[in-house]
Amino acid sequence: MRPRAREVGVETGVLETGARNSIADVEGVRVGHVTLVRGQGKLVPGKGPVRTGVTAILPHRGNAFREKVPTAAFVLNGYGKSIGLVQIDEFGTLETPILLTNTLNVGLVADALVGHMLKQNDDIGVTTGSVNPVVMECNDSYLNDIRGRHVKAEHVSRALKEADVDVQQGAVGAGTGMSAFGFKGGIGTSSRLVEVEGEGYVVGCLVLSNFGRREDLTIKGVPVGRMLRACGKSDPQRYGSIIMVLATDAPVSPRQLHRLAKRATLGLARTGGSSYNSSGDIVLAFSTAYRIPHYPAGKIKLILLRDDRLNPLLKAAAEATEEAIVDSLFKADTTEGRDRHVREGIPVDDVLRTLQHTTH
Amino acid sequence: MRPRAREVGVETGVLETGARNSIADVEGVRVGHVTLVRGQGKLVPGKGPVRTGVTAILPHRGNAFREKVPTAAFVLNGYGKSIGLVQIDEFGTLETPILLTNTLNVGLVADALVGHMLKQNDDIGVTTGSVNPVVMECNDSYLNDIRGRHVKAEHVSRALKEADVDVQQGAVGAGTGMSAFGFKGGIGTSSRLVEVEGEGYVVGCLVLSNFGRREDLTIKGVPVGRMLRACGKSDPQRYGSIIMVLATDAPVSPRQLHRLAKRATLGLARTGGSSYNSSGDIVLAFSTAYRIPHYPAGKIKLILLRDDRLNPLLKAAAEATEEAIVDSLFKADTTEGRDRHVREGIPVDDVLRTLQHTTH
Amino acid sequence: MRPRAREVGVETGVLETGARNSIADVEGVRVGHVTLVRGQGKLVPGKGPVRTGVTAILPHRGNAFREKVPTAAFVLNGYGKSIGLVQIDEFGTLETPILLTNTLNVGLVADALVGHMLKQNDDIGVTTGSVNPVVMECNDSYLNDIRGRHVKAEHVSRALKEADVDVQQGAVGAGTGMSAFGFKGGIGTSSRLVEVEGEGYVVGCLVLSNFGRREDLTIKGVPVGRMLRACGKSDPQRYGSIIMVLATDAPVSPRQLHRLAKRATLGLARTGGSSYNSSGDIVLAFSTAYRIPHYPAGKIKLILLRDDRLNPLLKAAAEATEEAIVDSLFKADTTEGRDRHVREGIPVDDVLRTLQHTTH
Amino acid sequence: MRPRAREVGVETGVLETGARNSIADVEGVRVGHVTLVRGQGKLVPGKGPVRTGVTAILPHRGNAFREKVPTAAFVLNGYGKSIGLVQIDEFGTLETPILLTNTLNVGLVADALVGHMLKQNDDIGVTTGSVNPVVMECNDSYLNDIRGRHVKAEHVSRALKEADVDVQQGAVGAGTGMSAFGFKGGIGTSSRLVEVEGEGYVVGCLVLSNFGRREDLTIKGVPVGRMLRACGKSDPQRYGSIIMVLATDAPVSPRQLHRLAKRATLGLARTGGSSYNSSGDIVLAFSTAYRIPHYPAGKIKLILLRDDRLNPLLKAAAEATEEAIVDSLFKADTTEGRDRHVREGIPVDDVLRTLQHTTH
Repeated sequence: MRPRAREVGVETGVLETGARNSIADVEGVRVGHVTLVRGQGKLVPGKGPVRTGVTAILPHRGNAFREKVPTAAFVLNGYGKSIGLVQIDEFGTLETPILLTNTLNVGLVADALVGHMLKQNDDIGVTTGSVNPVVMECNDSYLNDIRGRHVKAEHVSRALKEADVDVQQGAVGAGTGMSAFGFKGGIGTSSRLVEVEGEGYVVGCLVLSNFGRREDLTIKGVPVGRMLRACGKSDPQRYGSIIMVLATDAPVSPRQLHRLAKRATLGLARTGGSSYNSSGDIVLAFSTAYRIPHYPAGKIKLILLRDDRLNPLLKAAAEATEEAIVDSLFKADTTEGRDRHVREGIPVDDVLRTLQHTTH
Repeated sequence: MRPRAREVGVETGVLETGARNSIADVEGVRVGHVTLVRGQGKLVPGKGPVRTGVTAILPHRGNAFREKVPTAAFVLNGYGKSIGLVQIDEFGTLETPILLTNTLNVGLVADALVGHMLKQNDDIGVTTGSVNPVVMECNDSYLNDIRGRHVKAEHVSRALKEADVDVQQGAVGAGTGMSAFGFKGGIGTSSRLVEVEGEGYVVGCLVLSNFGRREDLTIKGVPVGRMLRACGKSDPQRYGSIIMVLATDAPVSPRQLHRLAKRATLGLARTGGSSYNSSGDIVLAFSTAYRIPHYPAGKIKLILLRDDRLNPLLKAAAEATEEAIVDSLFKADTTEGRDRHVREGIPVDDVLRTLQHTTH
Repeated sequence: MRPRAREVGVETGVLETGARNSIADVEGVRVGHVTLVRGQGKLVPGKGPVRTGVTAILPHRGNAFREKVPTAAFVLNGYGKSIGLVQIDEFGTLETPILLTNTLNVGLVADALVGHMLKQNDDIGVTTGSVNPVVMECNDSYLNDIRGRHVKAEHVSRALKEADVDVQQGAVGAGTGMSAFGFKGGIGTSSRLVEVEGEGYVVGCLVLSNFGRREDLTIKGVPVGRMLRACGKSDPQRYGSIIMVLATDAPVSPRQLHRLAKRATLGLARTGGSSYNSSGDIVLAFSTAYRIPHYPAGKIKLILLRDDRLNPLLKAAAEATEEAIVDSLFKADTTEGRDRHVREGIPVDDVLRTLQHTTH
Repeated sequence: MRPRAREVGVETGVLETGARNSIADVEGVRVGHVTLVRGQGKLVPGKGPVRTGVTAILPHRGNAFREKVPTAAFVLNGYGKSIGLVQIDEFGTLETPILLTNTLNVGLVADALVGHMLKQNDDIGVTTGSVNPVVMECNDSYLNDIRGRHVKAEHVSRALKEADVDVQQGAVGAGTGMSAFGFKGGIGTSSRLVEVEGEGYVVGCLVLSNFGRREDLTIKGVPVGRMLRACGKSDPQRYGSIIMVLATDAPVSPRQLHRLAKRATLGLARTGGSSYNSSGDIVLAFSTAYRIPHYPAGKIKLILLRDDRLNPLLKAAAEATEEAIVDSLFKADTTEGRDRHVREGIPVDDVLRTLQHTTH
């Protein structure tokens, strides 16, 4: 099994990581993946080969609709087909799990998520309003038959059901067919611990990485991509994107979460991300520190951090994102997909050797 | 058949209307509806009764993906589950028809729209990128079993196929189960002719109306809703929303279309719309004056109106929206739906009598 | 003295007004005007005639910098030269009084406001950070020599010092040289009382009106402007704008205040406002329900209204704005300015007669 | 004289620089500085010592008001007091030079810029509308008596008059009193050459750097700040900000310039910028490829690059910003200011030694 970056000494940033170094260090957050790998060889549009999946991020163990969490989104570059951001912008709340999948599958996955929410909540559409499914995506068409929209309702159900604090990384779930920096990309996660006014908080990040040209890749400030260029050819990355999901247990408002969300893009930049034209670079940030009940029960009582106390969280958001991206590469196995396209897992030993010669 | 407002002398605004007084006065724009009415009586969640549908707005007769049109969105209030706005914000282009439907059906309808686009375009997901489906919604759950998500792919196909310049209004298509101001609402359309520097342009609007409390309804400035209150009881409108789609043949940029989109909300205000908390009040505005080809062919050559020449278009956007809303009421027949809920068509004679006593 | 609209029976909207029917019904809010009228006849650019002024809105009686109030801005149309909105967007707080003046005077008035804040706060720029002056404007150049930038620091000081709960309206302060709908415009104010979960709140509005063509003017839904057209000629309104300031004592967040701010534009629409191309239509909304101290003192404790309880406030924002605009006309005396340009005060008797014939 | 980074072999990024490696590589763009250094020793608030100035960026040699250039702004973090962004957001045009100065001086400098524009344009405020001055700022209060607002109209006039293609860097103009990463910061500039469809374009950047903690400083990916920490103590950077101004001769729309502006923040991130809470991190991007005449003359004819051709420009924006920041440090001389506060110029030899040991 491929190592995580930190397991082989590649430590990004200066802040301490959480126990799992994952988004699940935020109490209550769980992640589930369903990985779909079927067929090989020539693309038969609509049939396969299949190299895709779905990833679910659950904000807490309760009913997401009944107990909404404060949330904000930031779009660095909007070549993306996400659903759910309009309502998040207005109310600053998340009322479903967050699902990640391939670009053409957003409709089906959103419908499946609606189905899941309806099962959990008899009242939706009968005695109470609608529900706002949140689904985000990247384009895995270099390896996957995206026209087939192979992620079905049962996969969504399974990803939600099997969600766990043990977060798998690399070519799993929505990351199964993704590419980053000309290598295999996919799911990566990381976390940071910070202290604000004597209290400890976690900021976790999970990314779905599918962006960047090889020559842009930078790890710990070293332009590894340019130095590794010799080894293995790289198809030009055409439709790159990255979804970044931040979670924290710090008590912050949607406005403050929007500020955190923007900082994820600073971490992205440090890996060499250039947010090219056809990139859907979107950040979602939520807090688990408090919940907004669906049904009225008087006023909302909040105890929030002051803005001038947010610096450690802002820095943590950037660092966790940077490391999550690096880990999405380190953990992703070489994958062959449609038309015998191959995305090689990043050659960890070569990377380590390169970094050693340039360690700071 | 119920008359249009203008047919019985209710003329909103001062600008001249187009020949059809509809969004289809913009050359090339067509609208298709599929109306679903099945069952009656008690709601069996997921089964029926069905009072819903889908409406398709096609920007031109060509291939929407290959020939994109400049587009912008404005969200007055974001309690809405639309898909497609993120990419429109970034690129300012529309690359599919616009579909309207009920709130829980957005996922399925988006998937069906993707399917339709894939059928038309072999290259999507194979040799070129993804496609950005645009689907917008209101909540028709007062009359309809929204949990059933009864709009299926075949309905989407049909709405797209049967799109025509003859635009049906009222309780049709996505408007089948909608309510406005405590009356039956749904689809309404109108248009305005303007002249800019000696050239004539059309601004058309199509609305899906599902908002407003009866006491707020204002027609031609007269608070008709308060004066009609006596006749017929009204269930409090709980989850109101309105989708407003503007089309024009004026040569304007996405930035300028955003300016037009904002003016639609002024028309909304003049009907008494208050954009309440749980309203998804979203405007989409597109121009048919030029197209952005999907495949590169050198630079983009544009001839645009100056901003300081836009006033007639800004005024037209507000007026066409106001009248489209009024027509969505005038044309909507009384509809009985789930649990024997009834939305009465607005009593046109009473309205006319009220207006007569207060004509300006 | 000219009557307020309500004093002669012109009641806009349905909600009850506050005791003063002004923004000062929000406890602690005060307004000060300095009116500058000097010279007459031909414009000597930079010299006069002078028909301008400055208006100060103080959010509370304390130190605005030390005790900031939650605030949000919404720009309907951005042909405006305001200063201060960037920081309000980020932090959601106001830390100075709000000043209104003529367009070319914003720089000097902002500097004067900085001077005022420095006098009050020894720490600014020495042991603590900077201060964010908020100044908004309209263009009174039809009557005033704006090139002269005649509003000086002493006028700002005086407006701040003389601020009072008794709010003068019409051709006073920043409103001295403004025009609206081809008539004399300027300062108008109004308020609404609402009840939310058994508690009473006020929403007040103060406008600086300088927008609209005569034929657009609508009062209580009646297109008064078109009906009055005969009486008196009207110079085409070229550079119209309107500043709308909302205040409330309801406990709401900056995100919620942004929602209120948007509703002010619905009131604007109902007066016939079309938000033409060269209009700077900007809304600022603040709450006095709580304060954010400049110096850290632990976390921020808030008790906020739920979003689904905001409807009465949203409606109140629109109504108070609509009436404030009407009053800015009713209260404004005929004014002759540069080049013998005359803006007539709206002929109240004619308006009343017109409305009587069309009363609903 | 201190060397530029590139002169001593510190080459950031991979793209080629323009002839001057400055924003003035964009044909027509000129920069002028006025540097104010007076007094020393203890701060006497309002009197001195003075360590501040003003920097003017002129988009072209014509009349900026008569011939506006397409422009967009992006705010990464809005603790800033800029004036002029509201109108840029609406119209996408710049109609004055861009001025940079210290935070409390924005009002006076805006007024001086208005004065300058009035002198150039007899019509403003008489026969045509208002003018939108654009002034941006950072807080130099660690070294400067900002309460004194020492930048006066004559300094603004001089900066505008003396603007030149030879751009001075470091502790000059608005950069005189600024600090970055615990060292002396200030003005930096850089440029990149790119080719799009066979044609060459320049992207230039000028920054006013005043942000960052020493331990964050990263040059060419090397965390130089942490490695240099030993040498020299550093006052904690309290009120950091950075203004980034991008210029290009590529034919792009305001929407596309907004996309470029966002990429400047990626360059910022690569220098270690964390966009802390009290940072005003604002980007302005303009194009000189075409002009929008103030007075109507028919439609606007544009020939624009396609969005899918922008990648080289997006990358160039990030690279030019990164290098401009580095140069703002390299070129800034040690400065002693108020209360004998000292900001040391970054020790170039130490930096070079550190980078040598870690060169990639």
